Amino acid sequence: MKPRISMITLGVRDLNEATRFYELGLGLPRMDSPPEVAFFTLNGSWLALYGREALANDAGVSPEGSGFAGITLAHNVASEAAVDEVMQQALSAGAGLVKPARKTSWGGYAGYFADPDGYLWEVAHNPLFWVGPKDEPAG
Amino acid sequence: MKPRISMITLGVRDLNEATRFYELGLGLPRMDSPPEVAFFTLNGSWLALYGREALANDAGVSPEGSGFAGITLAHNVASEAAVDEVMQQALSAGAGLVKPARKTSWGGYAGYFADPDGYLWEVAHNPLFWVGPKDEPAG
Repeated sequence: MKPRISMITLGVRDLNEATRFYELGLGLPRMDSPPEVAFFTLNGSWLALYGREALANDAGVSPEGSGFAGITLAHNVASEAAVDEVMQQALSAGAGLVKPARKTSWGGYAGYFADPDGYLWEVAHNPLFWVGPKDEPAG
Repeated sequence: MKPRISMITLGVRDLNEATRFYELGLGLPRMDSPPEVAFFTLNGSWLALYGREALANDAGVSPEGSGFAGITLAHNVASEAAVDEVMQQALSAGAGLVKPARKTSWGGYAGYFADPDGYLWEVAHNPLFWVGPKDEPAG
């Protein structure tokens, strides 16, 4: 197995609402795709949105499930101010505030928001090391 | 918000078992880190393993939850044979077989396995376009 995650797919209740949140609210780049799915061509692993029942059906498992999904997605940024900016952008786009950004026990600064389906995103500044994909060089 | 997911964190019941599965079973590169967490420095978004209760606590939510998490992770490869190889590697490492690899409705070839905590991975070959991070150039 190569060391990569190609895509993270979120099973959503309302594809239009979720797509609006990620494309218009958060500004993520969406690829042309069939109407039943939304692909976001991120720098690193891609993000996909798909109906929750359809996703479970694709895997052949029951769609039943509730409570904490057990998975969180992190968006790391280069400064504490950038954490505040992204948290504000997400809340303006309709995200739920889960944990206001604050200093963390590990020396960083982070907050959490929930997307329209309740999936948890951590917005974090880690002053110790950079995590995940680097930004593409400009131009 | 920049178009990237920095890290995906899986909340696990047994960190040692989950770390063994991903590091030794699947061969993912693990970074030196404190004993309560495991970071895998993937090509693209990183993967982290953290105790399920600790993860929920970090976000300030209840750890209660059951059934389908609603999220799947995809590992795309360059051929149908490579799908079979990765599925076999995962099963040999102790993964659960969720859906044997087969032709898909969208013209690809894919199967699903479950990690020790039940998180679903799709192993897929998409002949239409490459998804997610490219392999680093050799050398």
